[in-house]
Amino acid sequence: MSGLLGSIAGPHDVKRLTAEELPRLAGEIRDLLVDSCARFGGHLGPNLGVVELTIALHRVFDSPRDPIVWDTGHQSYVHKVLTGRAGGFAALKQEGGLSGYPSQAESEHDFVENSHASTALSYADGLAKAFKLRGERDRTAVAVIGDGALTGGMAWEALNNIAAVKDLPVVIVVNDNGRSYSPTIGGLASHLSSLRVNRRYEDFLGYVKDKIGNVPVLYDALHGMKKGVKDVLAPQAMFEDLGLKYVGPIDGHDEQAMEAALRKARGFRGPVIVHALTQKGRGYSPAENHDEDQFHSPGAFDRATGAEKPKGRIWTNVFSEELVRLGKEREDLVAITAAMLHPTGLNAFAEHFPERIYDVGIAEQHALTSAAGLALGGLHPVVAVYATFLNRAFDQLLMDVALHRLPVTVVLDRAGVTGDDGASHNGMWDLSILQVVPGLRIAVPRDGDRLTELLREAVEVTDGPTVLRFPKGPVAEPVEAVGKLGEMDVLLTPAAEPDVLLVGVGPMAQVCLDAARLLDAQGIAATVVDPRWVKPLDEALAPAAAVHKLVAVVEDNGRVGGVGDAVARLLRDADVDVPVRTFGIPQEFLDHAKRAAILGRVGLTGQDLARRITEAVARRTSSAAEPVRP
Amino acid sequence: MSGLLGSIAGPHDVKRLTAEELPRLAGEIRDLLVDSCARFGGHLGPNLGVVELTIALHRVFDSPRDPIVWDTGHQSYVHKVLTGRAGGFAALKQEGGLSGYPSQAESEHDFVENSHASTALSYADGLAKAFKLRGERDRTAVAVIGDGALTGGMAWEALNNIAAVKDLPVVIVVNDNGRSYSPTIGGLASHLSSLRVNRRYEDFLGYVKDKIGNVPVLYDALHGMKKGVKDVLAPQAMFEDLGLKYVGPIDGHDEQAMEAALRKARGFRGPVIVHALTQKGRGYSPAENHDEDQFHSPGAFDRATGAEKPKGRIWTNVFSEELVRLGKEREDLVAITAAMLHPTGLNAFAEHFPERIYDVGIAEQHALTSAAGLALGGLHPVVAVYATFLNRAFDQLLMDVALHRLPVTVVLDRAGVTGDDGASHNGMWDLSILQVVPGLRIAVPRDGDRLTELLREAVEVTDGPTVLRFPKGPVAEPVEAVGKLGEMDVLLTPAAEPDVLLVGVGPMAQVCLDAARLLDAQGIAATVVDPRWVKPLDEALAPAAAVHKLVAVVEDNGRVGGVGDAVARLLRDADVDVPVRTFGIPQEFLDHAKRAAILGRVGLTGQDLARRITEAVARRTSSAAEPVRP
Repeated sequence: MSGLLGSIAGPHDVKRLTAEELPRLAGEIRDLLVDSCARFGGHLGPNLGVVELTIALHRVFDSPRDPIVWDTGHQSYVHKVLTGRAGGFAALKQEGGLSGYPSQAESEHDFVENSHASTALSYADGLAKAFKLRGERDRTAVAVIGDGALTGGMAWEALNNIAAVKDLPVVIVVNDNGRSYSPTIGGLASHLSSLRVNRRYEDFLGYVKDKIGNVPVLYDALHGMKKGVKDVLAPQAMFEDLGLKYVGPIDGHDEQAMEAALRKARGFRGPVIVHALTQKGRGYSPAENHDEDQFHSPGAFDRATGAEKPKGRIWTNVFSEELVRLGKEREDLVAITAAMLHPTGLNAFAEHFPERIYDVGIAEQHALTSAAGLALGGLHPVVAVYATFLNRAFDQLLMDVALHRLPVTVVLDRAGVTGDDGASHNGMWDLSILQVVPGLRIAVPRDGDRLTELLREAVEVTDGPTVLRFPKGPVAEPVEAVGKLGEMDVLLTPAAEPDVLLVGVGPMAQVCLDAARLLDAQGIAATVVDPRWVKPLDEALAPAAAVHKLVAVVEDNGRVGGVGDAVARLLRDADVDVPVRTFGIPQEFLDHAKRAAILGRVGLTGQDLARRITEAVARRTSSAAEPVRP
Repeated sequence: MSGLLGSIAGPHDVKRLTAEELPRLAGEIRDLLVDSCARFGGHLGPNLGVVELTIALHRVFDSPRDPIVWDTGHQSYVHKVLTGRAGGFAALKQEGGLSGYPSQAESEHDFVENSHASTALSYADGLAKAFKLRGERDRTAVAVIGDGALTGGMAWEALNNIAAVKDLPVVIVVNDNGRSYSPTIGGLASHLSSLRVNRRYEDFLGYVKDKIGNVPVLYDALHGMKKGVKDVLAPQAMFEDLGLKYVGPIDGHDEQAMEAALRKARGFRGPVIVHALTQKGRGYSPAENHDEDQFHSPGAFDRATGAEKPKGRIWTNVFSEELVRLGKEREDLVAITAAMLHPTGLNAFAEHFPERIYDVGIAEQHALTSAAGLALGGLHPVVAVYATFLNRAFDQLLMDVALHRLPVTVVLDRAGVTGDDGASHNGMWDLSILQVVPGLRIAVPRDGDRLTELLREAVEVTDGPTVLRFPKGPVAEPVEAVGKLGEMDVLLTPAAEPDVLLVGVGPMAQVCLDAARLLDAQGIAATVVDPRWVKPLDEALAPAAAVHKLVAVVEDNGRVGGVGDAVARLLRDADVDVPVRTFGIPQEFLDHAKRAAILGRVGLTGQDLARRITEAVARRTSSAAEPVRP
């Protein structure tokens, strides 16, 4: 690593630089970020916005004694650079390379590996309470949270708690760029953005510079002196009503002003908000000018033009187009996104039916319960979220939607192994935890044609919720059924007497077909079925299983509690004691790598399955575990 | 029903009464509530606080065209009385009688059957958006939410969304009694309570009455005129910063003032907050004077004195005492409650270690992630919640605690069938959804001695989270082990060659022992084991199972995805294909009744189990489902 970056082994080196060197450092960092994101994709926009802010943090605070928690972790690239990991950007998000999120294994400066939004304030609350209780009086917990993440209820829960302890050493940096993925939504956002569109903001910056120089104001709700300033601007009122100190707004790209604000905040030894105004995509014009999401997280792109490499047709496209068709047919269809209008493909629906789309902010809980309200009001809501984020709204789906048997369709994109984004983005939980929800139906399409077909079936259900889940990436080629078995598609029936029944969930049906061909060469005759609806499972599965010697269930989901367990239970309940073997993702947090590489590693390929099933058949003929009488 | 109550068949009858008759109506309602709660127990305190408020709502709004959503549903007793269900209080919360929560089956006036807090604003948001989209211009969605429920993040997510739509017909009544179960916690609470302790509140009420009579003020942030009044008081600032209109504060026990405020709010045709100050337990002195929780939800009590019938020693007591002992031994133990200090038994710990207890408000998400922060800071947090409420923090337990392998102990009280409180209070989900959490360990004590033993083991774990779950009610008598099998307790080994292995989870171990005796009489020899730790299961279970002809797993949890499925998976993975049968709660929402009655109904008694296992053994010898080749 050449330039100033070559001299940065950790925060102490950042502290050693002169103020004059910092713009050069910022420039080098931006160059590195644009370069590596152009090659590998990554969260470019958010990180370009926090370059100066992060430099200032590492000059003022003493990481890791002062832990810095990023909300979300995808804005930690600059932090990674400044904590000695610039070299790692040569393999950003690649297997064995630098994670796209904080990583405890990478650095002692990464306290938490967070990617789900709105958690940082809670971590900071806990950390600071521990410092206080243990008498570690020199430590401060720092949380950096975007205005988008502030729309999440958890952040409010944390603010409410942090504000209640007057001497809690927490510094909250609000990174206010006016957008998360999309422009931030809601009352809070318009409140914050009033600063940006309002001339009073310019007036205020002038006021501060004229009257107080570059030293920011530490407001105090109990102190009348600054009342005049306070009344010029609104935002601190909300925070101060909660009992929080407020410093700002600060120009987040003015490193010296940020440093001054942070030093002030650090010295206070109580909960303080530092409100920084930043620009997403700052310093890279294709990002700055990108209206949709300011290069929130592009795939690989051309550095000169910003043009992303074409992705081909992905599952999301199929959903997006079909939902528009359905919207034309049915006026009662409405759609909900939690700040992910474009990534979920709902933008097309929004363009056609602007009155029928609701972006609720990063607020999955509210998304589900307001969907319940819409359904109670006579509409059919389609809630589109990433599979991993539905975990945030499990209770709401269960108690608010399912308990009332309401017709709400939840569409889970990025289900199963997603890969690059690491452990917390894999959608490997939904097929397990959703099994417990009474009355919920779950469909898993194996290809694009099935996606359109099952989406239509889902929105026609009137007596309870439905879930439709599909993976990240290129949509699978159509696989036609050769027969039906109840609601299930039969994809292969062997010529010979069947040995093994392969149940392939969604895209794993194709993997089962691959395995069946290899098994056939071993003299093992396999039937392949795709259940289409995996909850409830078609009871026709039991008598079908009974003519086989082994049932194998294959799913792109954690193997604990998923469709495999459900098939085994269905057979047990029908007194069909054919041995069952279940194949899925090992129940562990997976390191980042490409989806295909992970599927290979965990044995979810045709070849691996064929081998494992052959072994299982062979073991059936030998003895199992040595019996031991208790 | 005599008196005015005898004439109330629905809201139209409430509207017909003269203003002079209303205090008498309120008195009759209080009398009915105290009387029925004294007999059956119930949410007395909250309902005594909303008598006038509810009368005013039904006189101003047109339920059910204007849906009224209660947050939580436990404050809907008065609403039930006014919608023609006074007679039902003769069997409050009894099997076949009136539910303690809203119930769609009971009345068209009950839109949602909610008991988990902070959801009402989201329902109202969805309902109002549906009214708007469908052109139903005369309808208003009304949400009544306590100041306690406002500490839940979901409520903030909803406020943020509601505020963003200027013509959304939503009226939010904030029922501010300064406490949920315990005094409300946090910045919001001290903000609201500043009104109560501050002389300015009295000044303000006087000001309003002097200047404007009893007509409440409709504040408008964009309207400077009321600025002077606004500055006297703080609370509207927070709401107005979000863009919400604010009416209040109103004396919630002044029915006429409430009516006037609600009419004003209704006429506005946009989102409005009506801030009502009420007194929990109002009008029944033992409740008003009850410091702990103002009779939030007592069991049966003596009407004259308010003395509750003694409950005997419950599971909660054992946990409460043991945690104090552990707290004395270990300075790093801290405890967290989500507004349930007394119900979870953490009050004893709080008394001994006031520096080491954190009440976070009704904020389970924050509870778990701040616990993660405390653990990162070197402490061992014990988070005590009702089992059903952990669903709110599933993602936080998974991503924030387990992903970081943090030593946090979660104690789930009221696990399994709880009974009286209906579908949403049964803790029948945890043993299923928690199975998917990597690295999490789960202990289920069968009796009080095991609770103390397993709690000690749990807090000694340093490399990941632990969960301990126990039911509601009297603690089970000790059942001593006759042997060990790995970490499992063997409770019974038959003299004869064993036929059936009974795996009893927690208190179901005793039920298995009961069943084993009955099976013995049928000539079926049963082994009984209690796994103690049900995740991970001891692998010694596989060879033990292999010497039996059938394995039966019994758990007080939904039968989908629970320990039964886990045992079956463990055996499959070990190539032990002994038939397994799993017994638990049917995967459906259960109507309210006594715990014992429900356990009987769902077949979780020794007698039922013995019968079902005998049948399963018999069926094994005859043919299973007719095989059908696909």
